[in-house]
Amino acid sequence: MTDLPRFGAGLWHFASYVDRYAVDGYAPPVTTLEAIARAGEVGDLSVVDLNYPFTPGVGLDEVKDALKDAGLEAIGITPEIYLRKFGKGAFTNPDPAIRSAALDVMHEAAGIVRELGADYVKIWPGQDGWDYPFQVHHGHLWKLAVDGMRELASAHPDLKFAIEYKPREPRVKMTWDSAARSILGIQQIGLDNVGVLLDFGHSLYGGESPADAAQLLIDHGLLYGMDVNDNLRGWDDDLVVGTVHLTEIFEFFYTLRINDWNGVWQLDQFPFREDTIDAARTSIRFLKALHGALDVLDIPALREAQERQDAMAAQRLVQDALLSCMGTR
Amino acid sequence: MTDLPRFGAGLWHFASYVDRYAVDGYAPPVTTLEAIARAGEVGDLSVVDLNYPFTPGVGLDEVKDALKDAGLEAIGITPEIYLRKFGKGAFTNPDPAIRSAALDVMHEAAGIVRELGADYVKIWPGQDGWDYPFQVHHGHLWKLAVDGMRELASAHPDLKFAIEYKPREPRVKMTWDSAARSILGIQQIGLDNVGVLLDFGHSLYGGESPADAAQLLIDHGLLYGMDVNDNLRGWDDDLVVGTVHLTEIFEFFYTLRINDWNGVWQLDQFPFREDTIDAARTSIRFLKALHGALDVLDIPALREAQERQDAMAAQRLVQDALLSCMGTR
Amino acid sequence: MTDLPRFGAGLWHFASYVDRYAVDGYAPPVTTLEAIARAGEVGDLSVVDLNYPFTPGVGLDEVKDALKDAGLEAIGITPEIYLRKFGKGAFTNPDPAIRSAALDVMHEAAGIVRELGADYVKIWPGQDGWDYPFQVHHGHLWKLAVDGMRELASAHPDLKFAIEYKPREPRVKMTWDSAARSILGIQQIGLDNVGVLLDFGHSLYGGESPADAAQLLIDHGLLYGMDVNDNLRGWDDDLVVGTVHLTEIFEFFYTLRINDWNGVWQLDQFPFREDTIDAARTSIRFLKALHGALDVLDIPALREAQERQDAMAAQRLVQDALLSCMGTR
Amino acid sequence: MTDLPRFGAGLWHFASYVDRYAVDGYAPPVTTLEAIARAGEVGDLSVVDLNYPFTPGVGLDEVKDALKDAGLEAIGITPEIYLRKFGKGAFTNPDPAIRSAALDVMHEAAGIVRELGADYVKIWPGQDGWDYPFQVHHGHLWKLAVDGMRELASAHPDLKFAIEYKPREPRVKMTWDSAARSILGIQQIGLDNVGVLLDFGHSLYGGESPADAAQLLIDHGLLYGMDVNDNLRGWDDDLVVGTVHLTEIFEFFYTLRINDWNGVWQLDQFPFREDTIDAARTSIRFLKALHGALDVLDIPALREAQERQDAMAAQRLVQDALLSCMGTR
Repeated sequence: MTDLPRFGAGLWHFASYVDRYAVDGYAPPVTTLEAIARAGEVGDLSVVDLNYPFTPGVGLDEVKDALKDAGLEAIGITPEIYLRKFGKGAFTNPDPAIRSAALDVMHEAAGIVRELGADYVKIWPGQDGWDYPFQVHHGHLWKLAVDGMRELASAHPDLKFAIEYKPREPRVKMTWDSAARSILGIQQIGLDNVGVLLDFGHSLYGGESPADAAQLLIDHGLLYGMDVNDNLRGWDDDLVVGTVHLTEIFEFFYTLRINDWNGVWQLDQFPFREDTIDAARTSIRFLKALHGALDVLDIPALREAQERQDAMAAQRLVQDALLSCMGTR
Repeated sequence: MTDLPRFGAGLWHFASYVDRYAVDGYAPPVTTLEAIARAGEVGDLSVVDLNYPFTPGVGLDEVKDALKDAGLEAIGITPEIYLRKFGKGAFTNPDPAIRSAALDVMHEAAGIVRELGADYVKIWPGQDGWDYPFQVHHGHLWKLAVDGMRELASAHPDLKFAIEYKPREPRVKMTWDSAARSILGIQQIGLDNVGVLLDFGHSLYGGESPADAAQLLIDHGLLYGMDVNDNLRGWDDDLVVGTVHLTEIFEFFYTLRINDWNGVWQLDQFPFREDTIDAARTSIRFLKALHGALDVLDIPALREAQERQDAMAAQRLVQDALLSCMGTR
Repeated sequence: MTDLPRFGAGLWHFASYVDRYAVDGYAPPVTTLEAIARAGEVGDLSVVDLNYPFTPGVGLDEVKDALKDAGLEAIGITPEIYLRKFGKGAFTNPDPAIRSAALDVMHEAAGIVRELGADYVKIWPGQDGWDYPFQVHHGHLWKLAVDGMRELASAHPDLKFAIEYKPREPRVKMTWDSAARSILGIQQIGLDNVGVLLDFGHSLYGGESPADAAQLLIDHGLLYGMDVNDNLRGWDDDLVVGTVHLTEIFEFFYTLRINDWNGVWQLDQFPFREDTIDAARTSIRFLKALHGALDVLDIPALREAQERQDAMAAQRLVQDALLSCMGTR
Repeated sequence: MTDLPRFGAGLWHFASYVDRYAVDGYAPPVTTLEAIARAGEVGDLSVVDLNYPFTPGVGLDEVKDALKDAGLEAIGITPEIYLRKFGKGAFTNPDPAIRSAALDVMHEAAGIVRELGADYVKIWPGQDGWDYPFQVHHGHLWKLAVDGMRELASAHPDLKFAIEYKPREPRVKMTWDSAARSILGIQQIGLDNVGVLLDFGHSLYGGESPADAAQLLIDHGLLYGMDVNDNLRGWDDDLVVGTVHLTEIFEFFYTLRINDWNGVWQLDQFPFREDTIDAARTSIRFLKALHGALDVLDIPALREAQERQDAMAAQRLVQDALLSCMGTR
């Protein structure tokens, strides 16, 4: 048996949530420090990705202490460039002053990455894009997106910036929407400290094969990080991983394995109506079983079936491993 | 030219919005009274559908006065059975005490309908459903949904109850999800004061033809109301009507016309990032042009083409009317 | 361990296929008799559903002999009311003469059902519907669909008729498109020998939960048959069962189990590029494992979790059974 | 008024069609020469894109004569690398001998392009991809796709090769699936005679904004050609243009206009159940009106609204032009 990977989670996994209907939130608010404590309670997490700014009144030293108490390290910082101020866009906001304000928040987040010794600034420009046909000049919008990322990343050559692409939400259409488009944009940026954080669910509901997206990013040297969850392929439901798409999540991790990609297995889930710690534990229980499935999978035979593109032979091998992985716990 | 219809809107059209990312809201909060004033400013609205409860501190008399001042009447009341307390369901909540609390809110809303002389209580059970495979016993869930509606409607035989179905959101899957399923449920309820409010966008992104859904509901005597908006067919984007699906919204209103359905043309839109009054005016400007298109459409020729199922002939007739309707303003 | 179910397949599983691009077919043509022989070779099939008419020149006696030689029985007959003649519809064709010709084919198929002692005439009206907005009068179209089914079924009160609904393809939109709509139509028909054949894949890509659809049909006494396959939720890919949606196919069979629905487990798959026998064997290998998973699933605990709508607890129980079912072979 | 563009069509627009159900075809077979004659009958077509090989027995000289008689020129040649032989792929077939045979067909097609003085060889690798998770090694598959295109294009430096990407069908997932992925692959190919043919419908149902895709391709100097049609966003329905998505087709042509892209406006439609000439005429009737709408659109005002990303202002301008374009015929 190979060693287990390190597990991680976006800190928002342990928050409470609002949406456009439950405007009073599905649960009482949770502070940054409380969320860190909950993450620690899970028991199998090594790292977290923290939203920035922290809860008002919470200082960096408190966050450091809370992480230490919880036995956690920071893997990344996610600046909140999707709050009210940036509702019409961060990098692509029509107002230069707001674009500048967005960069300020991201520069601050870069400072926090240094302070916490994290791996990257995660950039998720959820408000960058458009809602209506004819709303934007697509060429201008894309240029703003690319130029802004270049300006940001070039200011911090010592740090890594991981763009998390997503097809849509909250904007009806987002600018950084797929693996291929992200690679294209990063080539236009022309810096070597910009890469991609691949979210399994974003890829799946965007019509990609997440395994194919991972391979493409790895082949371009751009897979800086990844996180997992699940959905019904029509929306970013951020369900608990392993609850719907078992075969495709297995193919995703298989692709990481054969490429010797050994980063953190991270959760990006929104357990709106579940106990957040229970949801995280259920996720990791599954991921451990899946890791075991990779150990028993007959990879040489699978590769041979794939060279023939023999789907039936491949599926039998996959089912043998996947559909027995809980039995070997 | 035929007379223009009465126009209406859900009062939430004039609110501000939050979502799971912009948790501080896309704009400052708007009270019930402010929203009514904004609705009045639009200039073409005759009626509104009001969420209940009103903003804390706002009494019914104030609402009555505000409506009067704005030149508006109430067409319906929408009890907020989708806030935190009902996050795991209203009618289908696993906890009988919460089901009971949801009914209490709806009984109160029924009282408001009487007080305001509105047409119906609108029931939108957005939290009723499930998120994960295997989460519920589907038979039991459906029974709770149907029995609860029967209990509610039978308590108010003098009032009408309009169920607004929707495929999903906020639940990953909602119980009342389509026109056919709603009719089936209403037949099981067995009361004559329960019908349907048909939302164009819900129907469209649920894979129905909204025109077909309208016809089916009319043929069952169940089309109590309708509202319009637009989307990209993958989600309930609640965009401004007429911005994407011109042909299908025209077919929808055509269907109402040939069936002599003469209710209010209502807006159910969420202009997250737009000026809400501007969005409403842009909507009604389009709806007026579309109404004019119905007047010039060669309906006998269209019916004849439809009897032959001649799509090309039908389309030419439709384009002649639709693609000249702004020219005749 | 409970007894295995009887397995079956649509005979077309063993045919060759064309599509609009590979107009010369993915493999050489296969006659009815050859397809029966192939079905026999699979080794685990007990029944087949046969297209009618048979290959030109093949008589009923030959079919009977071939079935006997292959150790198979007929479960149903599927009249081919989707060939060129019926390209604009069978029941809903605008031409009464073609509607009548379609009924003739179906009456003949009814005769074959009697001759072969099959369970039902399967009605799959794939060409009934529309392609363009405004092409049809939706009310008239639905009436043709319902009236035609009534005329057919009332002529054969000794036989059962199973409607197989599907959202679309080959028509851009089909009339019998969902479980709820089918139940509604069958109620309008008003006969007790019309029911539904539920295709897992049709339900899945139509946005239903197949488990929910099965429960709804069972609760109405209308689940006459079912067949399985898989897809990517966007189209009726007719992939081999168990290759993508493991959790949902498990929930589907779980629903049949708890309702004591003990019919045939049938395959409706189109292995365009696969060896058809290999594809069938791979399917049944999976279904046997899944059947075993039902035996070990802790159903009382699952029911208890479902009463609380506790998705995490339910998923852990499901994963314990599903993700060990190949290990127990 | 600006001059009308040249109009064109894929010659298959005038063919008859089969699919997996209507295996006897929706109409009697149509030869290459008959299809050319039909294209000529439309009256507004200047060019056609021809499938190759031609109908057996039809020689190149006959095709030349037929084109001349019909008043048509060839714009492109589309080698049929999606027939039975290539059912498991052309460039990405697991068998090197079949990959080689596919290249042979494409080399022949290149010769026809020279003979007819056409603009490009169109490459539509519809069978290149996969059907099942785990069927292929995604990195190897992509390498085959890119290397094969390079080998082909480098052999004909005097010709242009236009890749027509598409998300799926007939393969469940195709390799060249989006604009961004195509640009990425063309960059890896590293030749200056490989570009893209953008199909409006493929882009739309793939989740792109066709206008955005056009802009991105133009900005990379890779928009070699385009064709139009329509669909319901879930599948490549190849409906007649202008029957569903009026706003987005308008935005698409607007994007071409502001970039001074002046190529042929081509039809790629499959009128399965329609008269093919009637369908083409209905299409061009619409496209002429749309061309007129571009002439009256207030482009400076629209650009100004787009700089502010003011969706409502943009929509009003768009509706003023689009919804009056038939009135000015």
